[in-house]
Amino acid sequence: MDNAPDTDLRLAPAAEAGRGTRPSPETRQALDPQSPVARFGADRPLAMDAGVALAPFQIAYHTAGTLNAERSNAVLVCHALTGDQYFAHRHPVTGKPGWWESLVGPGKPVDTDRYFVVCSNVVGSCMGSTGPASIDPATGRAYGLDFPLVTIRDMVRAQAMLLDHLGIRDLLLCIGGSMGGMQVLQWAALYPERVFAAMPIATGARHSAQNIAFHEVGRQAIMADPAWADGRYLDAGTRPAKGLGVARMGAHITYLSEAALHRKFGRRFQAGSAPTFSFNADFQIESYLRHQGLSFVERFDANAYLYLTRAMDYFDLAADHGGVLANAFRGTRTRFCVMSFTSDWLFPTADSRAIVHALNAAAAPVAFVEVESDKGHDAFLLDEPAMFSAARGFIDAAARARGL
Amino acid sequence: MDNAPDTDLRLAPAAEAGRGTRPSPETRQALDPQSPVARFGADRPLAMDAGVALAPFQIAYHTAGTLNAERSNAVLVCHALTGDQYFAHRHPVTGKPGWWESLVGPGKPVDTDRYFVVCSNVVGSCMGSTGPASIDPATGRAYGLDFPLVTIRDMVRAQAMLLDHLGIRDLLLCIGGSMGGMQVLQWAALYPERVFAAMPIATGARHSAQNIAFHEVGRQAIMADPAWADGRYLDAGTRPAKGLGVARMGAHITYLSEAALHRKFGRRFQAGSAPTFSFNADFQIESYLRHQGLSFVERFDANAYLYLTRAMDYFDLAADHGGVLANAFRGTRTRFCVMSFTSDWLFPTADSRAIVHALNAAAAPVAFVEVESDKGHDAFLLDEPAMFSAARGFIDAAARARGL
Repeated sequence: MDNAPDTDLRLAPAAEAGRGTRPSPETRQALDPQSPVARFGADRPLAMDAGVALAPFQIAYHTAGTLNAERSNAVLVCHALTGDQYFAHRHPVTGKPGWWESLVGPGKPVDTDRYFVVCSNVVGSCMGSTGPASIDPATGRAYGLDFPLVTIRDMVRAQAMLLDHLGIRDLLLCIGGSMGGMQVLQWAALYPERVFAAMPIATGARHSAQNIAFHEVGRQAIMADPAWADGRYLDAGTRPAKGLGVARMGAHITYLSEAALHRKFGRRFQAGSAPTFSFNADFQIESYLRHQGLSFVERFDANAYLYLTRAMDYFDLAADHGGVLANAFRGTRTRFCVMSFTSDWLFPTADSRAIVHALNAAAAPVAFVEVESDKGHDAFLLDEPAMFSAARGFIDAAARARGL
Repeated sequence: MDNAPDTDLRLAPAAEAGRGTRPSPETRQALDPQSPVARFGADRPLAMDAGVALAPFQIAYHTAGTLNAERSNAVLVCHALTGDQYFAHRHPVTGKPGWWESLVGPGKPVDTDRYFVVCSNVVGSCMGSTGPASIDPATGRAYGLDFPLVTIRDMVRAQAMLLDHLGIRDLLLCIGGSMGGMQVLQWAALYPERVFAAMPIATGARHSAQNIAFHEVGRQAIMADPAWADGRYLDAGTRPAKGLGVARMGAHITYLSEAALHRKFGRRFQAGSAPTFSFNADFQIESYLRHQGLSFVERFDANAYLYLTRAMDYFDLAADHGGVLANAFRGTRTRFCVMSFTSDWLFPTADSRAIVHALNAAAAPVAFVEVESDKGHDAFLLDEPAMFSAARGFIDAAARARGL
């Protein structure tokens, strides 16, 4: 839980592997994240679903706001697949504002003037928490594919250890979208007594066949890149930039909607109004997608992408509870607000309704909000006034109920 | 218009390029297609939208049924992106039945006991018609990316030259799905006097931004494969199998529907019922997709895939007619049947409705059929009784109106 570098646990850039090449910008950040880091030694391993006790390991996190004396105003923000702990802080690689500053901040629905907000980089990722790019103490090299498969439950267990570390027994609110929403559901199922209110957004209690299919295409694109080198590219000082870029381009389409793409780009050409009769990025949508691929590669580790997509694929909260989703929430006292967006085809409203039905069956207090939006899945990251007002109402009520 | 090999125009396998390697199965078929071939010499070039006069060139085609004495019973079937002339004949590479035997054959809606049915491999493809894998007479090597960009209109012009060659002045029916439907619309717009009845299925009068985006991801996957070698892989005797496989996997998802994927695969595991905690194809959907990628590579040329996806992206029939789609059909006497499928999200019903509205505005006779199906875009290739009965009714009526 400090910022001092710890060579045993840092991520492994090529330079660490003794090749003498300079670490890339994103690897430098992963090596020495511009955020606090909590370190867990051999005495506090992470019990992983793959049957491995991971030790040592570290969790990079960030906070905003102040923990009150009663320690009753803590909020956990859970990030999505390619998110990180920079939810309310400028990103050290891209220089962009925090990814959820629209929702979290002074006077915002998750009000940092009132609440103490924590967000940690999930285990298996690459922004300072232990993952496949970290050094395997057994070999002195990056784990690569020797890193154990990570599950959503593993991420939540690590977050719980972080909260213990920070002296936070329970959460006023656990909130997140997409893969973050999966973590919220897992929190409510695994530690119901630690979650007063839960807000899973644009998510599902399990990943659909179509979503698994899209993820598999992305993984195959990465693994098809010779620079991936069976996952050992960090040893070689290379990176599978083309494969990861293609994976990101394909995934990015699924985060938007046909309506949003039509509105933003339509069939407009890049320069002038005529086709060039070539394979150049004639259409604006092509140029935009290529940019998405290129910029992603600057900030994300390819193996981490494999691991986190796999974690989402494996997520199936009903299967973990005898095939009945309601069993995941039996006896819960957590209050829920489930939110979906009309144009989200990655996690359509039907997925949220299935969660709501299960919560109803478990007699849990639940509000359901379907936000009218044409922005697709990524709407949860964007300026959606209806989302903000619904979140504010739910969170304010939870705070009042808790005497805040 | 004969089957004899013509070395000037054959596709270029590595063996042709003097490397001494054996041509792959698919290249052998492309070299010497098991179907008739019409050859057009320097005196009959193809005027292409890219501004090139392509000569010489050849069109591989297949037929079923018998042309009547009045030459009034001809039907043109237009194939989709990865289709070919083997619409009613066993595929020479895969050994599978013709791709549209469900709709075309003796006693079928397109009844080969009554009609003479022609289907040609589109220009730019790789099953015997001239395309990027053909020998460039200027260099003696495969065209590769030196082949001019192909448009849907170029495909239709080449088909018209083939029909001239076959002595067919006009068509009782022009029918096709997806990219084949684009050709049907282009036929009706370019040669209205040659088309008595037109049936565009599961298609659009222009490609949407989202569809362009999916195509661009596929192209980037191919071009990211080092074996693609800037399109010169045939010279080297290699092929970008991994890139093309990834492109196919991604595209294949868009041909299905979430409901179909859920019904066929759900979240079922390959072996047993537990995750293996690895990147193996744990889920049946992953194994299925990998198979789709692998088998496609055996029968299709990567550069042809680039060219044909580009042709679809460029297609915009309204833009070709002053921005007003109805202008494409002004004064037409062709009768239309436009068909869509409820679960097709690649060419949703809205795309078909836009065609119908334009035909209404042009005062063209048009029937519109939306088939209830959960099979997604590929429904037009599958067993859909409602499609068959609607097609039969439309085609029978057209034949009666023509005195057949």
